[in-house]
Amino acid sequence: MLKKKLALAAAVAGAAGLLLSLPAITTAVNKPATTVANDGRAKCYECHDEIKAMKEGSKHAKLSCKSCHDKLDAHISDPEKNKPVTLIDQALCGKCHKAQYDSFFKMSYEGAARKEKGMPTGRSPMQDKLLEPYGFTFEHNEPRGHAFMVIDQFAVDRFQGGRFQFKDGWKGVDKSGKTWDVLVDNKEKNKDWKPLSQSAMAGNPTCIQCKTSDHILKWKFMGDKDPKAKWDRTSNIVDIAKDTNNPVGCIHCHDPHGAQPRVVRDGLIQAIEKDPAANIFSKNGKTDLKVISFRDGFRKIGVMQKTDSRMMCAQCHVEYACGAGTQWSDGKPVKYEDQRTNHFPLKNAKQLLEHYKQLDFFDFKHTVTGARLVKFQHPEAETYAGSVHDKAGVQCHQCHMPKQKGKDGKMFSTHGVIRPKNHIKESCLGCHPKSTVEQKLYEIEAVQNYSKGKMRKAEYWLGELIDTYAAAQRAGVVESVLTQAREKHEEAHVLWEYWTAENSDGFHNPDLARDSLTGSITASKAGVKILRDALAVAKKDEVKK
Amino acid sequence: MLKKKLALAAAVAGAAGLLLSLPAITTAVNKPATTVANDGRAKCYECHDEIKAMKEGSKHAKLSCKSCHDKLDAHISDPEKNKPVTLIDQALCGKCHKAQYDSFFKMSYEGAARKEKGMPTGRSPMQDKLLEPYGFTFEHNEPRGHAFMVIDQFAVDRFQGGRFQFKDGWKGVDKSGKTWDVLVDNKEKNKDWKPLSQSAMAGNPTCIQCKTSDHILKWKFMGDKDPKAKWDRTSNIVDIAKDTNNPVGCIHCHDPHGAQPRVVRDGLIQAIEKDPAANIFSKNGKTDLKVISFRDGFRKIGVMQKTDSRMMCAQCHVEYACGAGTQWSDGKPVKYEDQRTNHFPLKNAKQLLEHYKQLDFFDFKHTVTGARLVKFQHPEAETYAGSVHDKAGVQCHQCHMPKQKGKDGKMFSTHGVIRPKNHIKESCLGCHPKSTVEQKLYEIEAVQNYSKGKMRKAEYWLGELIDTYAAAQRAGVVESVLTQAREKHEEAHVLWEYWTAENSDGFHNPDLARDSLTGSITASKAGVKILRDALAVAKKDEVKK
Amino acid sequence: MLKKKLALAAAVAGAAGLLLSLPAITTAVNKPATTVANDGRAKCYECHDEIKAMKEGSKHAKLSCKSCHDKLDAHISDPEKNKPVTLIDQALCGKCHKAQYDSFFKMSYEGAARKEKGMPTGRSPMQDKLLEPYGFTFEHNEPRGHAFMVIDQFAVDRFQGGRFQFKDGWKGVDKSGKTWDVLVDNKEKNKDWKPLSQSAMAGNPTCIQCKTSDHILKWKFMGDKDPKAKWDRTSNIVDIAKDTNNPVGCIHCHDPHGAQPRVVRDGLIQAIEKDPAANIFSKNGKTDLKVISFRDGFRKIGVMQKTDSRMMCAQCHVEYACGAGTQWSDGKPVKYEDQRTNHFPLKNAKQLLEHYKQLDFFDFKHTVTGARLVKFQHPEAETYAGSVHDKAGVQCHQCHMPKQKGKDGKMFSTHGVIRPKNHIKESCLGCHPKSTVEQKLYEIEAVQNYSKGKMRKAEYWLGELIDTYAAAQRAGVVESVLTQAREKHEEAHVLWEYWTAENSDGFHNPDLARDSLTGSITASKAGVKILRDALAVAKKDEVKK
Repeated sequence: MLKKKLALAAAVAGAAGLLLSLPAITTAVNKPATTVANDGRAKCYECHDEIKAMKEGSKHAKLSCKSCHDKLDAHISDPEKNKPVTLIDQALCGKCHKAQYDSFFKMSYEGAARKEKGMPTGRSPMQDKLLEPYGFTFEHNEPRGHAFMVIDQFAVDRFQGGRFQFKDGWKGVDKSGKTWDVLVDNKEKNKDWKPLSQSAMAGNPTCIQCKTSDHILKWKFMGDKDPKAKWDRTSNIVDIAKDTNNPVGCIHCHDPHGAQPRVVRDGLIQAIEKDPAANIFSKNGKTDLKVISFRDGFRKIGVMQKTDSRMMCAQCHVEYACGAGTQWSDGKPVKYEDQRTNHFPLKNAKQLLEHYKQLDFFDFKHTVTGARLVKFQHPEAETYAGSVHDKAGVQCHQCHMPKQKGKDGKMFSTHGVIRPKNHIKESCLGCHPKSTVEQKLYEIEAVQNYSKGKMRKAEYWLGELIDTYAAAQRAGVVESVLTQAREKHEEAHVLWEYWTAENSDGFHNPDLARDSLTGSITASKAGVKILRDALAVAKKDEVKK
Repeated sequence: MLKKKLALAAAVAGAAGLLLSLPAITTAVNKPATTVANDGRAKCYECHDEIKAMKEGSKHAKLSCKSCHDKLDAHISDPEKNKPVTLIDQALCGKCHKAQYDSFFKMSYEGAARKEKGMPTGRSPMQDKLLEPYGFTFEHNEPRGHAFMVIDQFAVDRFQGGRFQFKDGWKGVDKSGKTWDVLVDNKEKNKDWKPLSQSAMAGNPTCIQCKTSDHILKWKFMGDKDPKAKWDRTSNIVDIAKDTNNPVGCIHCHDPHGAQPRVVRDGLIQAIEKDPAANIFSKNGKTDLKVISFRDGFRKIGVMQKTDSRMMCAQCHVEYACGAGTQWSDGKPVKYEDQRTNHFPLKNAKQLLEHYKQLDFFDFKHTVTGARLVKFQHPEAETYAGSVHDKAGVQCHQCHMPKQKGKDGKMFSTHGVIRPKNHIKESCLGCHPKSTVEQKLYEIEAVQNYSKGKMRKAEYWLGELIDTYAAAQRAGVVESVLTQAREKHEEAHVLWEYWTAENSDGFHNPDLARDSLTGSITASKAGVKILRDALAVAKKDEVKK
Repeated sequence: MLKKKLALAAAVAGAAGLLLSLPAITTAVNKPATTVANDGRAKCYECHDEIKAMKEGSKHAKLSCKSCHDKLDAHISDPEKNKPVTLIDQALCGKCHKAQYDSFFKMSYEGAARKEKGMPTGRSPMQDKLLEPYGFTFEHNEPRGHAFMVIDQFAVDRFQGGRFQFKDGWKGVDKSGKTWDVLVDNKEKNKDWKPLSQSAMAGNPTCIQCKTSDHILKWKFMGDKDPKAKWDRTSNIVDIAKDTNNPVGCIHCHDPHGAQPRVVRDGLIQAIEKDPAANIFSKNGKTDLKVISFRDGFRKIGVMQKTDSRMMCAQCHVEYACGAGTQWSDGKPVKYEDQRTNHFPLKNAKQLLEHYKQLDFFDFKHTVTGARLVKFQHPEAETYAGSVHDKAGVQCHQCHMPKQKGKDGKMFSTHGVIRPKNHIKESCLGCHPKSTVEQKLYEIEAVQNYSKGKMRKAEYWLGELIDTYAAAQRAGVVESVLTQAREKHEEAHVLWEYWTAENSDGFHNPDLARDSLTGSITASKAGVKILRDALAVAKKDEVKK
């Protein structure tokens, strides 16, 4: 029975040949290592003493190496020739952590499927105009739960021309699980398959690193090319998609050897290492993150002493550059060979334009104005940083993964990642015990009402800027004036678009939302004024003639 | 008691002088005719043996002719001089078919009254721009139930200038029943009455044939002029409205003599007869519809052996031309004398532009671009044809008229014609017993979310095309370029507008919706590109000068 | 106990030195005055016999003068030197009228906080375009309950640059009570405080007179400057705001001395006095309002024999001019010295443009067209006047303040001022006992659906007019044509904007809504046609050259 239990537990990483340098990590281990269990692990530790340091004395100390690794005997007999197999599936972890596992995959009907943001009632009603001609204009949906993060990314019309579809059609739209149990590759079924009309061919390997943990041992740090890496930033997106079987795994946030809280996403680790004292997570000039490098820097992980879900969630819930782009300085393309296609700024709406100018990178040009624009991802971490709740020490999981009672009567953190508005009792009232659900909902909606008001205004003025630009251009307004207006567009765009990508409608940081969105309006109005003035002068000149 | 029951039952048609040729219909009769009842019918059968063929042995065999016909004695005494009276009111049928009758007239609060489609949250948020100057821009409401189909048609602002209003004002907006118990004719009340501001004078006799069965004996096949027909396509619309007392009757779908399933709408019968092997209802090259012609073709009905609600509903839930229009070929008007003002294409969104070009007919020109446009009716039948559900053999009534238990404990098909989304248990779970209501609702909404997303995009691009056209025209772009753009508008319009007229937001046929709506976007974008390119060249030329 | 009760009751006004002339008011007193109570009031009556007339025999007759006035002894010893203190707080009245008081301040979650009207789903989706550059475009929210009327006015972004904010931030958004317990003055906290970006510096003393009763003894009739008045129309808005502590008080509608129904708002009294026979409240050529002048006309009140809540509510729920403006005749500014900055037209949507032209006053010019526009307040009284419900004798309070049972088992009028749609049983079914909640809701929504449809159309056409104007101006269309179009804009604007300010979405008077909104559409379309025709000619002329 005990043996069975051990065999069920989950662990990953620890691939053969890892060179580990972890002087710091021992601080994360709570209990001193004792005599190791007689299950063969001693042999493993002969080469992998870094694993020993993490594992012995930890919550996972009782687990045999075989719990999560296959073909160990072959590996031991010829370590260079035979690599062990690492089991990465969430189901393995789920055997012990059943409540967490079940909550992750439990269908939530709260997030509607394929609900376009570009609707009058959506988060970005004017996106077709404001983002022309970018890929997101082909389909840009409100998000669903984590269980759908890979599936929805592959099935969306802007990804590979609609090549991947739900196997059961619309009847399959609420199924999650293994990617290729749910989706079908239409080109595989039909060699003459053609992309759907009004679809795009977007998608890139970097982006996938935020959706899944499947490539954790096949991807070099930052996605650089390497003979040891199956995939890198330049890999064929379809090939990597076909090799992606699971949404983000337990191991993204939990070290399997020692059960320590951790992060694995390279861009985040790089960004924190660049500025350890003053990044958005640091407190008193430091961040509780020990970076451990494996295999001469082939791979890095960051381990925390105490859970900081702000960092764990920031592996994906951030703005990051992942697609090819262009340089501000000379208009030259930035291709996937360039590490800027896997880049975490960790900056907020007000800082990002400057950041991307310094990085010399932008995503696309607007069709009408030619403005150099950025499309953001989902910058929740940067938005939250410095907010009232952040300053009070609240972390993401307290609102989005509240404790609940499992079937076994024990409390656990729900891994379904809920929308607090729909679960105010669990998410809010723990810290606000004197409030009622009705009251907290009212307050949340007040913030969102206000922020949405500013978003709609920002969109109106961006639209006005674009239309006036077109009119000015047609009227022959001089290039120097058009350039000024275009730069106002660049400024206004960044300050606005961030909020259509961010998922809280301002709640994560109402002050930042206000500052940023009114900044967008100010920039757009300035651009409109420049153009209107020029048009008025042009008219006057014409009349004189 | 038995006698009373018999006397209550309903039947219609069988007007004097009908010449019936129905060799085929006998196949529809299940039981062989026996000795006829001793209630006077034998005398009727002397002239009307076609009625005998339909009636004897049928479910209505026991009913006396007097059940549904008055003044028979006078008719028998002088058949040419005295026409019998045929009772057409649903209430007559309702005496036996009480559950069906009650469900038809039961008020449903699900369909809101006078809810304009041209709202940000409506089905056609940009219609005022995209349909300018067509009548529907004056008031275009989301549909209510069948009990309101005549009333709502007459009371809408685009019909006869708002002449007909609810008798009890807004307090009467939820009353149904006899038309003129609910509505009032303001011009009758006040000779100086003037049309309401911002109303239209639309409406035509053909359209009314889809709203009521009242004119079934007064309307020649296809609405052609005839001394025997009280009404035809050229009749005064107000006169015919004043003679319209009931919404669509039982007899539209149920033959009163023999209770067989049937269709009576001329346009549908004509369209099926034109292409019996390959119309949207045919299976294995044929359609189960026997067309019976009365009075030398004065009137036709189509009788089925087995209920096919796809055809029954297609009497109205189709696109059809009913108003005056214009010819593509020479710009000449098509007036009501022309049979093209009562025409069922039975084609879907992707086929209709070509169809109407071949028919040489369009409805109106767009004010800004001059594009020749079509306004669709409610093309549910064409949309559904070829869908997943259609291929699976599902018919309209299975989802929209599900069986329910009546007050008498017996199951009956609800004739209220429900919105399945609000009644998923009854409408969906019969065929999908493993699903939950929540799940099916989620899937339906997924389709609708996606389709609405495409609708909004199609509208954005049509708007952009119209605006760019206006700019190009003002900038003096040459007519040949404008013509190309205008033709793109014609193409894009048809592929879009169909979906604002169709009532399922894509659910009836998601693939068709996607194809058609993205086709619209492609056409609009092509038009915009033509114009933008021309504008850029125009600008360049100007600068050169 | 009795004494305590007396001491609790509420009363206001009656400040020292009031000169009262009220021959008529005695008609309002039901019981003949008897011997006055031995509580010192006789001494007061020596000078204030007008108070005696109102008080003795009335429902408040038992209350001592000290119930509501402090420092009476000092006043009696030297009346000129020592003014008595008048207690004005609602809490004083609430001591006896507890149910009314509690219902006034009870938090209602029905009205959302800071819900911008300028949203696709809001009441004025296109306001940023249609009201450019007016202050309301900076923040224009759907209204909350009366308890928030001062707070929301001060906290809105268009009022003093966002200087006043909720003390507890978003957590304080649902707190009501004393203004400065809820709000904070940021400039007081920080001398370097700067207005928020995209805010406005609006607000004026007149407007505050509709939000609070606090200044009732400090404000001369019509807000004219006077040494005896602490505040007048030209006062500093921040100073007066800081002196405003309560939302509208009991005394706005209830005379404290005699408990008679009354009105105190100067603009309303002036408007009724100007046209006693034919104002919107008069019946058979007269209005049941006795105007009483105090202190040689320093202050006036209007007392009714019977409650007429149409007048009581019309103290605020009307259109009124309160801000500085401009003259139509010569373009000269109208400043706060001018009494037109405190003016009640008491006219409806169809009459207001003409009214304001005669008054020679408008609010602002539209940025694009230069049209001279009016921004309305909340013209509920004028809208309701002449409606079906008004003609039937229904008053505001019957629907908005229905009777309900208090904790003490007694019936009372709820002073929370409810939204009838959410309380149909209480608000509607008393008069419509045969109807169901579902039915009445359906009918109300039918009116609102229809009216909203017209609002959206009116907005579309105003937008089209503005855009076409800009195009025409750029194309060099002559000023005389632009002037015609601009005048159409002025006409169309007034007929539309009224309905975004009015709070019933047409329900208060569906016919007026239809007439007015379609009138707006007609005017806009006429303006668009003028401009399009001119553009077409301009084009033709250009081609000729």
